[in-house]
Amino acid sequence: MSILVVGTVAFDSIETPRGSAERVLGGSASYFAVAASFFSPVQIVGVIGEDFPKEYLDLFSRRGINLEGIKREKGETFYWRGRYHEDLNVRDTKELHLNVLSGFVPRLPESYKEAEYIFLGNIDPTMQMEVLNQLRKIRLVACDTMDHWIQGSGHELRKVLGRIEILVINDSEARLLSGEHNIVRAARSILKMGPKVVLIKRGEYGVLQFSDSSIFATPAYPLEEVFDPTGAGDSFAGGFLGYLARTGDHSQRGLRRAIVYGSVVASFTVEDFGLKRLTTLSLEEIEERYQRFVELTDFHT
Amino acid sequence: MSILVVGTVAFDSIETPRGSAERVLGGSASYFAVAASFFSPVQIVGVIGEDFPKEYLDLFSRRGINLEGIKREKGETFYWRGRYHEDLNVRDTKELHLNVLSGFVPRLPESYKEAEYIFLGNIDPTMQMEVLNQLRKIRLVACDTMDHWIQGSGHELRKVLGRIEILVINDSEARLLSGEHNIVRAARSILKMGPKVVLIKRGEYGVLQFSDSSIFATPAYPLEEVFDPTGAGDSFAGGFLGYLARTGDHSQRGLRRAIVYGSVVASFTVEDFGLKRLTTLSLEEIEERYQRFVELTDFHT
Repeated sequence: MSILVVGTVAFDSIETPRGSAERVLGGSASYFAVAASFFSPVQIVGVIGEDFPKEYLDLFSRRGINLEGIKREKGETFYWRGRYHEDLNVRDTKELHLNVLSGFVPRLPESYKEAEYIFLGNIDPTMQMEVLNQLRKIRLVACDTMDHWIQGSGHELRKVLGRIEILVINDSEARLLSGEHNIVRAARSILKMGPKVVLIKRGEYGVLQFSDSSIFATPAYPLEEVFDPTGAGDSFAGGFLGYLARTGDHSQRGLRRAIVYGSVVASFTVEDFGLKRLTTLSLEEIEERYQRFVELTDFHT
Repeated sequence: MSILVVGTVAFDSIETPRGSAERVLGGSASYFAVAASFFSPVQIVGVIGEDFPKEYLDLFSRRGINLEGIKREKGETFYWRGRYHEDLNVRDTKELHLNVLSGFVPRLPESYKEAEYIFLGNIDPTMQMEVLNQLRKIRLVACDTMDHWIQGSGHELRKVLGRIEILVINDSEARLLSGEHNIVRAARSILKMGPKVVLIKRGEYGVLQFSDSSIFATPAYPLEEVFDPTGAGDSFAGGFLGYLARTGDHSQRGLRRAIVYGSVVASFTVEDFGLKRLTTLSLEEIEERYQRFVELTDFHT
């Protein structure tokens, strides 16, 4: 089953304790799309500037990603520069230029309007809603957001939350959105806002999944070296929703396996700068690490 | 199989965002002993002052804990006062008085010297070594420590590490001891210092277990309310070693199940102040929550 993703396509300049990279391909839609493409066909919606190179579009194409919904506008592509601390959970944004993203109104090509699995990446909730309103056959919508929208566009965000099945969010954002410090209470409070499932990303500590009837907790895959955490969350979401769309199994077991596949893909992403590791990754490597994940966490069988 | 524990027996005054408690029973040996007593007989080694009330000794006795190795000295009992932040992972020590603990030399009663399972709680490594040197039939030694001893008694601590099977330590201590920020590298480095197994406690994020041939990762049991995190680490160690001593199964599967039992006991400890919750806890409740833990983490079966 094909997945539609809307989000940012960006240039990222990244400094980590292991090194730095200039103007590499980034953005929530880019990470999501490449991660999901291991499991399902992907249609991407986003905007790029005149400076966006063919090389990066080719990277998407090689992964079979449909680019009909990428619009090229006059001006420069969305740009982010950030620096990670020795504690990779902490990062500073050094520069952020919306460029062509400001004022972008997503218009879906006809071929996208039948999409059934949707990921609303971390962009303005009004753009997320704009995309939802153009879709005719929605089966499942997952959504990400961030502190900026929670604080500045709470009203619009609440409307989006009323129309989605799965919210994918990190722990500090869950606390901000709910006003609850305890993460279990935070999740319960968010479930009342609309989503049937809340996935809470905790970086190197793994993921929590909450629904009305169940909690699932899983650690992250332990790595001896994390090169660059950029895009881990969106890679997780891509692997998760990609697997879910491939199997169509929305049961608790299906959701849990999808979470582990998402965690596995994210664990590869952070092994190198930007999207570099994902461009050489194979489904065989993913399956092998999924098996190692089973061995990593199993205590009962 | 009986377990011997050496560590502190203390008065704790605790402030958390949920309330406060004055001079309640605390200390590493106290939490460990009560937690382990659900699974195995426990012998405790420690020192108390003239001010230590019969009520607290009775609490140990009701749990079947052998108190022959508790020495009463002139002076006051070890005292700690601490305050937790809204983020319960952060706490400030407001007062710390060693009192009778300073200069304490543990002398084991004859009946303790045949102990096979040993827990060296978080005290001066020279005291830990003193205990080891009096034991004749050691089968398995687990040990805890803290930043204070890592920084101030590194040489003595290294000697202890050369004689133990299992080090139980939290993540920041593992980083300090190894000089490695990445937690996988930190654990690998500590394994070279002697222990066959390193257990890294990550508070609300769970536990990692490292050995030469295997890694095990498990989340913590998610709670809607954490009342008081004091003693969670020692309760974990008590449940872990108690279960291990009961089964005698030191295989990877045995160790993993013991870790989950330890996590379950710790999850009860933090539900109320000090040792309060553990004094009403039943083995049936532990088994029930263990089963919930299986449901919480299972994705593959």
